[in-house]
Amino acid sequence: MTSMQLGLIGLGKMGANMRQRVRAGGHEVVGYDPRPEVTDVPTLVALVDALEAPRVVWVMVPAGEPTRETVRKLADLLGEGDLVIDGGNSKYTDDQPNADLLAAKGIGYLDCGVSGGVWGLENGYGLMVGGSDADVERAMPIFDALRPEGDRADGFAHSGPVGAGHYAKMIHNGIEYGLMQAYGEGYDLLEAEPLIENVAGTLRAWSKGTVVRSWLLDLLVKALEEDPGLQEITGYTEDSGEGRWTVEEAIRHSVPAPVIAAALFARFQSRQDDSDTMKAVSALRNQFGGHAVRRAD
Amino acid sequence: MTSMQLGLIGLGKMGANMRQRVRAGGHEVVGYDPRPEVTDVPTLVALVDALEAPRVVWVMVPAGEPTRETVRKLADLLGEGDLVIDGGNSKYTDDQPNADLLAAKGIGYLDCGVSGGVWGLENGYGLMVGGSDADVERAMPIFDALRPEGDRADGFAHSGPVGAGHYAKMIHNGIEYGLMQAYGEGYDLLEAEPLIENVAGTLRAWSKGTVVRSWLLDLLVKALEEDPGLQEITGYTEDSGEGRWTVEEAIRHSVPAPVIAAALFARFQSRQDDSDTMKAVSALRNQFGGHAVRRAD
Amino acid sequence: MTSMQLGLIGLGKMGANMRQRVRAGGHEVVGYDPRPEVTDVPTLVALVDALEAPRVVWVMVPAGEPTRETVRKLADLLGEGDLVIDGGNSKYTDDQPNADLLAAKGIGYLDCGVSGGVWGLENGYGLMVGGSDADVERAMPIFDALRPEGDRADGFAHSGPVGAGHYAKMIHNGIEYGLMQAYGEGYDLLEAEPLIENVAGTLRAWSKGTVVRSWLLDLLVKALEEDPGLQEITGYTEDSGEGRWTVEEAIRHSVPAPVIAAALFARFQSRQDDSDTMKAVSALRNQFGGHAVRRAD
Amino acid sequence: MTSMQLGLIGLGKMGANMRQRVRAGGHEVVGYDPRPEVTDVPTLVALVDALEAPRVVWVMVPAGEPTRETVRKLADLLGEGDLVIDGGNSKYTDDQPNADLLAAKGIGYLDCGVSGGVWGLENGYGLMVGGSDADVERAMPIFDALRPEGDRADGFAHSGPVGAGHYAKMIHNGIEYGLMQAYGEGYDLLEAEPLIENVAGTLRAWSKGTVVRSWLLDLLVKALEEDPGLQEITGYTEDSGEGRWTVEEAIRHSVPAPVIAAALFARFQSRQDDSDTMKAVSALRNQFGGHAVRRAD
Repeated sequence: MTSMQLGLIGLGKMGANMRQRVRAGGHEVVGYDPRPEVTDVPTLVALVDALEAPRVVWVMVPAGEPTRETVRKLADLLGEGDLVIDGGNSKYTDDQPNADLLAAKGIGYLDCGVSGGVWGLENGYGLMVGGSDADVERAMPIFDALRPEGDRADGFAHSGPVGAGHYAKMIHNGIEYGLMQAYGEGYDLLEAEPLIENVAGTLRAWSKGTVVRSWLLDLLVKALEEDPGLQEITGYTEDSGEGRWTVEEAIRHSVPAPVIAAALFARFQSRQDDSDTMKAVSALRNQFGGHAVRRAD
Repeated sequence: MTSMQLGLIGLGKMGANMRQRVRAGGHEVVGYDPRPEVTDVPTLVALVDALEAPRVVWVMVPAGEPTRETVRKLADLLGEGDLVIDGGNSKYTDDQPNADLLAAKGIGYLDCGVSGGVWGLENGYGLMVGGSDADVERAMPIFDALRPEGDRADGFAHSGPVGAGHYAKMIHNGIEYGLMQAYGEGYDLLEAEPLIENVAGTLRAWSKGTVVRSWLLDLLVKALEEDPGLQEITGYTEDSGEGRWTVEEAIRHSVPAPVIAAALFARFQSRQDDSDTMKAVSALRNQFGGHAVRRAD
Repeated sequence: MTSMQLGLIGLGKMGANMRQRVRAGGHEVVGYDPRPEVTDVPTLVALVDALEAPRVVWVMVPAGEPTRETVRKLADLLGEGDLVIDGGNSKYTDDQPNADLLAAKGIGYLDCGVSGGVWGLENGYGLMVGGSDADVERAMPIFDALRPEGDRADGFAHSGPVGAGHYAKMIHNGIEYGLMQAYGEGYDLLEAEPLIENVAGTLRAWSKGTVVRSWLLDLLVKALEEDPGLQEITGYTEDSGEGRWTVEEAIRHSVPAPVIAAALFARFQSRQDDSDTMKAVSALRNQFGGHAVRRAD
Repeated sequence: MTSMQLGLIGLGKMGANMRQRVRAGGHEVVGYDPRPEVTDVPTLVALVDALEAPRVVWVMVPAGEPTRETVRKLADLLGEGDLVIDGGNSKYTDDQPNADLLAAKGIGYLDCGVSGGVWGLENGYGLMVGGSDADVERAMPIFDALRPEGDRADGFAHSGPVGAGHYAKMIHNGIEYGLMQAYGEGYDLLEAEPLIENVAGTLRAWSKGTVVRSWLLDLLVKALEEDPGLQEITGYTEDSGEGRWTVEEAIRHSVPAPVIAAALFARFQSRQDDSDTMKAVSALRNQFGGHAVRRAD
């Protein structure tokens, strides 16, 4: 294994864990974060100075403007032969503009989808990368440190050119929406049926041997052990963008995606106090059939 | 036009209006209802006695056991050559058993789907009938009185043998679910968009000339005039069975029915305070990503 | 009624009918189209010259670049005090840029959603307009000529500022997708059920009095009369964009739109020879259960 | 471990593997199947005779009438104190009648959902059981032989009274539909996107560390290795009933199940040459807008 230096920008929940895992892999990591209590260096300039050229800098900040702004700064601070990797959940359409901006200064660019959440520190992260073969090759020691142990191909892929890594991660998350909703519907049905006196045990019995066994199922079993009947929480569920983008891609490619769309809409629904759609339906039933409506207050 | 006698059992919201419309059509109607203030005769026996054989008796009572019980009583009270018409929202699978029971006594049977709601008194009712040609022919003066004026085929169909009338009505109602949900979603989207300053006016502008013009749209416009912004009601929406049966038929016939199923599920959703499905999804997001859940209370 | 002059650009299926209807309304219309056999004037310049200032010019060309290009040309050719109306199916996001471009020359702008298809010539068109009160007032004689006869509010709305007209039309078309799919699913179920011996007659019996009566239903009845069993056509169904945009708006506004999305996906599906999604599902069933797959060729 | 005798009826793909696994667990298995080449005994009577009372007999024949018929025969052949386990994919509504029939002879009954497919021989089977505590306890050595090694609770649950085992298995399979469809949609989207040059590798990179890792994903990776691009198969996908039942249960319990329903409908769709629904939609577009239809032939 080649030991490398890595600059890592963004030491939040994900970034801090990744710093730890890359260091455990035998590499030197210089981390930067605006919060003094977690950062290794006081400024971005100091981070760049702390690395020997040619540098590799991993960006792990919130998607959208924060990531684009960081890339713009790096385009100023880095130089010919350096390499930037965006490991956040950026939309894939940000990647080519980022790559172009950096390429104008002779700086390379990779986009890397990272999956694994808070468990990645221990289990390793699944990685999907977009960019050139040469850039991927160069950063491979870092990818090898981050990915799960075992066969590289089970936790790492070079998915295609710039943009492919984030595209793959977006689809990964779209699938994730569908999987979670499928387990959720099944859980709801088990809870609804009086015959099933042992919902949590039934789900746990699917952990091994069955067709539906998965890591998400393991987590659902764990959640039910920690909060039997999920009585401490509500169904209010946020979404962080990738599910929306996946459905937009389905539209762009004319690919039917009823399951992923249904999972996305269920989240929207979970955040509504009431539904204008259903008010209209209820009003219509009242109009044509005299069916009772439920009055507000 | 031939003037007829008709026995009519069930003088609720629909039945009372139908009595009025059939009478306005020049027929004699003897109505029976357990409520003394609306009934024409004190008992079912009195109703049968008041009619000259061969009798035609229209049943307009709640679907399910009440209708089946009424048919059983009529099988006892009526005789050879009489005819029973079930005009309620019975499940089509009740029709053949009802017909068989009556046929054993020489009594004919028709099932008739009736659409039009509280407006049918004025506009006439759309009718879909199942049964034999001879029985249909015999009851035609009543059907002609109930259906809208104009061409018979625009408001009446002999859809097929016994069961076909209720089957057609069930599908009619399944479509109705889909139509209402489509208007509801569109209304919701107009309400959500700040550019649309005039939601009610926009919907009303679709009343004539447009592709989406319909009676349901007219009713939505009317509802919004009566309750601007639908502020007086909630989205809680009941269902009375035909939507469920339609989806079950879709399953039985292996016909995809995503729109009707989505409309049905939206009603289920509207009646839930919270969703076990979404609790599971939210719990999973918390488990793998440390994403915040919304705590109960 | 005030008689006006109108310039009309685009004399396709819709534009030619609209020219005829506006003329029938007592106005002077100068139409331009690149096809010599339909145009009134040889060039756009000639059209502008043929109109007295202040001019009103209606653009009725394909949405997207053709409309944007026409607006750019009009920004050059028209002048202070003139008014442009985009009556095509432009995406609402094109409207403000178009309005800004024209406003820089002192030219007004309205966006007008137009519904009615090939029947609008006879029935009038439903109109939804976005723009300023003053501009709307000025073009009102043209709107009055185009809209259905009767109460103005039943076929015309000033929906809001620039963009609101096309937004409303987009949602109108999204609803249209849902309505058509609902009727389609119902038709499919009637066709699948042997009890229904008279599918076309059953649908026609819904034309009057029923809850599902609508213009689209009338058209379905007509289609079935012209092509019994719809045996001459396939289910391959195009889409022209508004359905996609509607689902994208649902995503943007976090509004669940399961029915409109399902209708859109059904069209995508109708155009696929085979589905990669279902290949994956079939392959999975084979992997875990040894279930037979259907081999290609 | 207690060594037991087990009678096993049905030695198909599943039954034969289970005989092997139970024997490997140290138990004596007497298998019966009408096919002479696989059976251990020539007749059902011989099977019963080969077992010492009190007997335990596992039924592993096709769901529906074959299973019900087998249970009727066993009610005749077995006696007081014996125990029947239905391990097939019976509908849960068959269980109580089966249990009642057997109970009248003093014979116990358990229903056991079995998941694991052709891989169960090697990995063990996930088991969900319905019935009394005493009957479950008695058959536990067999369950322990069949389930995966390790913690019993990870592959076995006593879900509730008679019927609960098959109910749980039905929901398991409903979830399975949703999971497969989610992966399928994701695969379809990756295939549709030119940026993703390495679809199979991308999916494989999700095998470890990611949120979507699962056994089904492993199988999809394997399928793509065996048939790159899934070019040898079509998307035609059968269903064996549990998905339909799950949606019917969702309807019965008023639980929204949009994802499982969408997955079921996608299978229906995959088996259609053309869609009457979409023919109607296409005919409507032609009627109102003059849009082209695609002609049959």
